Amino acid sequence: MDAQPTQTPERAAYYDKIAPGNLAPLWENLKALVTPEPVSPCQPFRWRYAEVREHLMEAGRLITAKEAERRVLMLENPGLRGQASVTHSLYAGLQLILPGEVAPAHRHTQSALRFVIEGDGAYTAVDGEKTLMREGDFVITPNWTWHDHGNDSDRPMVWLDGLDIPLVRLLDASFAETWPEDRQPLSRPVGDSPARFGEGLLPIDWRPDAKTSPVFNYPYERSRAALEKLRETRDWDPCHGLKLRYINPASGDWAMPTIGTCLQLLPKGFTSAPYQSTDGTVYTAVEGAGRVTIGNETFDFGAKDVFVVPSWHRLQFDVDEDTVLFSYSDRPVQEKLDLWRERRGNA
Amino acid sequence: MDAQPTQTPERAAYYDKIAPGNLAPLWENLKALVTPEPVSPCQPFRWRYAEVREHLMEAGRLITAKEAERRVLMLENPGLRGQASVTHSLYAGLQLILPGEVAPAHRHTQSALRFVIEGDGAYTAVDGEKTLMREGDFVITPNWTWHDHGNDSDRPMVWLDGLDIPLVRLLDASFAETWPEDRQPLSRPVGDSPARFGEGLLPIDWRPDAKTSPVFNYPYERSRAALEKLRETRDWDPCHGLKLRYINPASGDWAMPTIGTCLQLLPKGFTSAPYQSTDGTVYTAVEGAGRVTIGNETFDFGAKDVFVVPSWHRLQFDVDEDTVLFSYSDRPVQEKLDLWRERRGNA
Amino acid sequence: MDAQPTQTPERAAYYDKIAPGNLAPLWENLKALVTPEPVSPCQPFRWRYAEVREHLMEAGRLITAKEAERRVLMLENPGLRGQASVTHSLYAGLQLILPGEVAPAHRHTQSALRFVIEGDGAYTAVDGEKTLMREGDFVITPNWTWHDHGNDSDRPMVWLDGLDIPLVRLLDASFAETWPEDRQPLSRPVGDSPARFGEGLLPIDWRPDAKTSPVFNYPYERSRAALEKLRETRDWDPCHGLKLRYINPASGDWAMPTIGTCLQLLPKGFTSAPYQSTDGTVYTAVEGAGRVTIGNETFDFGAKDVFVVPSWHRLQFDVDEDTVLFSYSDRPVQEKLDLWRERRGNA
Amino acid sequence: MDAQPTQTPERAAYYDKIAPGNLAPLWENLKALVTPEPVSPCQPFRWRYAEVREHLMEAGRLITAKEAERRVLMLENPGLRGQASVTHSLYAGLQLILPGEVAPAHRHTQSALRFVIEGDGAYTAVDGEKTLMREGDFVITPNWTWHDHGNDSDRPMVWLDGLDIPLVRLLDASFAETWPEDRQPLSRPVGDSPARFGEGLLPIDWRPDAKTSPVFNYPYERSRAALEKLRETRDWDPCHGLKLRYINPASGDWAMPTIGTCLQLLPKGFTSAPYQSTDGTVYTAVEGAGRVTIGNETFDFGAKDVFVVPSWHRLQFDVDEDTVLFSYSDRPVQEKLDLWRERRGNA
Repeated sequence: MDAQPTQTPERAAYYDKIAPGNLAPLWENLKALVTPEPVSPCQPFRWRYAEVREHLMEAGRLITAKEAERRVLMLENPGLRGQASVTHSLYAGLQLILPGEVAPAHRHTQSALRFVIEGDGAYTAVDGEKTLMREGDFVITPNWTWHDHGNDSDRPMVWLDGLDIPLVRLLDASFAETWPEDRQPLSRPVGDSPARFGEGLLPIDWRPDAKTSPVFNYPYERSRAALEKLRETRDWDPCHGLKLRYINPASGDWAMPTIGTCLQLLPKGFTSAPYQSTDGTVYTAVEGAGRVTIGNETFDFGAKDVFVVPSWHRLQFDVDEDTVLFSYSDRPVQEKLDLWRERRGNA
Repeated sequence: MDAQPTQTPERAAYYDKIAPGNLAPLWENLKALVTPEPVSPCQPFRWRYAEVREHLMEAGRLITAKEAERRVLMLENPGLRGQASVTHSLYAGLQLILPGEVAPAHRHTQSALRFVIEGDGAYTAVDGEKTLMREGDFVITPNWTWHDHGNDSDRPMVWLDGLDIPLVRLLDASFAETWPEDRQPLSRPVGDSPARFGEGLLPIDWRPDAKTSPVFNYPYERSRAALEKLRETRDWDPCHGLKLRYINPASGDWAMPTIGTCLQLLPKGFTSAPYQSTDGTVYTAVEGAGRVTIGNETFDFGAKDVFVVPSWHRLQFDVDEDTVLFSYSDRPVQEKLDLWRERRGNA
Repeated sequence: MDAQPTQTPERAAYYDKIAPGNLAPLWENLKALVTPEPVSPCQPFRWRYAEVREHLMEAGRLITAKEAERRVLMLENPGLRGQASVTHSLYAGLQLILPGEVAPAHRHTQSALRFVIEGDGAYTAVDGEKTLMREGDFVITPNWTWHDHGNDSDRPMVWLDGLDIPLVRLLDASFAETWPEDRQPLSRPVGDSPARFGEGLLPIDWRPDAKTSPVFNYPYERSRAALEKLRETRDWDPCHGLKLRYINPASGDWAMPTIGTCLQLLPKGFTSAPYQSTDGTVYTAVEGAGRVTIGNETFDFGAKDVFVVPSWHRLQFDVDEDTVLFSYSDRPVQEKLDLWRERRGNA
Repeated sequence: MDAQPTQTPERAAYYDKIAPGNLAPLWENLKALVTPEPVSPCQPFRWRYAEVREHLMEAGRLITAKEAERRVLMLENPGLRGQASVTHSLYAGLQLILPGEVAPAHRHTQSALRFVIEGDGAYTAVDGEKTLMREGDFVITPNWTWHDHGNDSDRPMVWLDGLDIPLVRLLDASFAETWPEDRQPLSRPVGDSPARFGEGLLPIDWRPDAKTSPVFNYPYERSRAALEKLRETRDWDPCHGLKLRYINPASGDWAMPTIGTCLQLLPKGFTSAPYQSTDGTVYTAVEGAGRVTIGNETFDFGAKDVFVVPSWHRLQFDVDEDTVLFSYSDRPVQEKLDLWRERRGNA
């Protein structure tokens, strides 16, 4: 896979001749298609929350949640402008819901995660059940479930949306429907799913009919306490600090089939060993501050900032305070397809 | 998801203002991103083998297999020119190996299938083991296995290549290496894998280390005989006739993690009921002749022709002779991700 | 399978002749071996805790936990005396640990569950980690893990032991070892496993090496609160009331591979519909009181009593108060082997 | 687990006092229940086929297949007489069907395997489909499937029956029914299942509803050829020679959920390294002759002889000719329950 074939006039003429038949020579493209290492169009980038927040608040004045259906500023990767992509396969956005607003009920085959950046007391309803959202909560609206959001608090609510839009687009598998009213009817009390599925037990005769976790809210209070407990062992991974992945307790698999989500703790003063993996990843800091080096670029970041690490870019953290990072990527997809790889250190 | 938000000068100015920060309004794009039904850029198309073969033979004169590394004419979807894609997520090509030629050894994370269209006696070697190829054989070169092809017969050999190139591209997960010599060394006799893994038994202490089937050649003789046996029950599926999927006997799953492959028999005079599914599919006829209606277009086809059915396009067959079709799609991916859907009949 | 073969002198002589060769006629035994419905040697029985407790306390005076290794009164099924069996495949016992005592560290291939009946503050240590035990807690000492118990409180501690001793005996798969000292060394803090595995997350690089849940204490406080939350939906199963099974969050399977464990709530005044299943089951009431009819026998029961329901015996509850039942059986084994059946109502 | 507790008159009196309450002291039994290594009641034994055959033929004169329902001589382990057990958990018998006879249709939850010892042309029908049986064929009658056997040839037919009778007995899970007539009606042609499920393909919309392989006949011709092909690599396992396990191609798991079946080749002159495993195993030689040492006993054996290796007994082969062994055990059960162990060599 080294040398390109020679270009000759005869060959060029041949390529022109076959083109109308929807034919093209692989040999002119093989090196670009099958690369020795990932060559991603994505670029590293960091969005400062303070700046995006200002724009979001202006959006709050320009359009209602209802008219927008979803009042979201997409975080577009600089290498993929116009494609609604933050990594090659995934989407990110920051969604604002003002007090009293509703983002109307719909459903779609795209899976969505919400990670709460700011605010307390808005809700997401999923297939007849509401959950209340607080900072740091990880909430799922699974593939093809009815969902609407509302803000009954007196403060703006902002969360990070992560969806598999580019992946579903490549698979040509988008379906969507709107509910006739803004809010779907509720059939179960708040807290039903966490009790039913999230306490180490499952209903005796329940069988999952989907791969997404039936626990659709993972409260930060619980996840953060788990990290805090585990730091007692001081068993820090050189690349990850202390890193947990959210799971579907009905299978032990990732909480979502298309998007892998993690929460990790880097202790004050920690400098991580270099790390590469094939899953382009979006991060947001819940707590803390520091610097992240992605490939050849270094960004400083603080709480609520968002940054993206493209596939196979060398990643290194260096933090000044105890730092908690939420992240998401397409790792579950790559694992299911035998494609995921990582490299630790400088090997 | 009905009305688009109103366009106003104020909003337009706002969009311009936020664009440099790699931000964009979701609400201007939501309808295009999350569609009520799949809206594929792919178009239906049929390649007549007789025409492509002529071009292939000319390619045989213009470039050697060795210089080309792989002398393949890509079958590009008319809706996706320049993207090495036959469906949105998959690739197709027709590869020619002339007598005495070798396509040199390499490996890559892209998975490949070969379905033999013409010829008898060329070989594929995979990780130290050769298999001989005949018309109708389905051969796999799994993800990251060394493979080379050669033709020791006295006739040209042509096969259909199916790869997951666009999918691996979206996932930014391409790795590739070349072997220092044209042919890799062989460590096991011809026929070892079929005996070891393909006769209803597995070695007592063997554990699979990959999701792809260890049986890397599924000979047509066996597959065709299975179809012929099953026709005795006359248990025709209205949409599919008699349709079997190739499996990995170590898991019962599809033979390949990223590409689903099937062989089906439509009996003489059969008209199928309409069928739609979300997995855009490539077909080639091994035997027989007839017409296929894909969406609003009807194509006639005969043996060795190739055609592509984009996602969610209405598909209907009408055959004049006993017809055997080989097909491949990304259905295993969609199933793993809870995205696959089908619709039967006019419902 | 209706008539037995005729007995004749000639046949009797033949049976005598072949017996020394370790041969016997199936046809004289077939009806007894392959029965139309389960014919269990087990009988229904109820142990009143008040009575057993008195015996246990006497045992506390007769032998130390250390000399006994485990000071346990086995609950033997009246139909299986001398076989250490409470159902045909499982074992039950009530274990007493007095203040200051230790049950020394050992490990064995038999899996064990502990369900705390009385007391607060004893501990179980499993592979280097202690857990504190309270009434209603369900604690696992998985297959081949080092475990010891101790009571640092000032009250006697009693729990129900459930093991798969008869099953492991049939499989001839018993291994056991003792630790050189009474207490194993501790390597992780109290609470590590629940945080690591039981909060909806798993360590990013952890892979289970066993089928038993890594969460080895399921505190009653959490399980009971889940039941209480779910009663809000008033969605009572006619046979089970509200019944949850303890799971392994790393797989979604039962918490233990050989023993299935459940917690269920029957609301005050509930009369259950008749129910039969092939898994002989041991119950203990954590709260409440009522009557249980097992086959043709009715027993009254109160908190801490234990009763056993043999395979395929008709089971019916009738409770006077809100009643919480813990139960265990070999259902996971039967499910894995395609043997488990249930029948609801009088069908 | 070393010293037994001291026996005292006071303790003895206590044991007597608690016995009527179905209570017994664990501490008097612990060492016997939880043993350091498996202590099986099974003993090694070899049945010479020539001797059993003579008895079988006499049985053929004493009782018809129809009156017997199944004319089988049970091979009872000398250590488990009267229990219909060849190992602790499994059953073995030799079944005779004379020309023109039928063993009438019934079904039961016990799973059965048939391994053909002698004869050619008898059939087994399973849920509406017949299969013809030849020497060395491995045939399954899965759990709860209707099955009858008949002999339309002109020679006696003898096969080895392997069932999970003792295991199903321990689980109290036996169900059985008889079909109103001797032969069940046939709904599919001979050869349907092998074509449908056994050629590396599965019907596109078929989903298994049971754990047993849908391929219910594994012909010796195919299995033996696989072994012969694999000997080319000369890759002999020191303990096993060349050993394959029969699988369910729909899952890659063992062909039956309760009984593991294998076929292995020991080349002429081969002496195996010592081997122990926890699954008591029944062997029969299809071809060849040699000696087998089981624990401290050595038996010579030839084709068609049957012998049993109890759990954890040291096993060693020494063969004079190319020897092919069929074997079965409860290994799939032990694996599912995390109980299976092996030890290689003298370690």
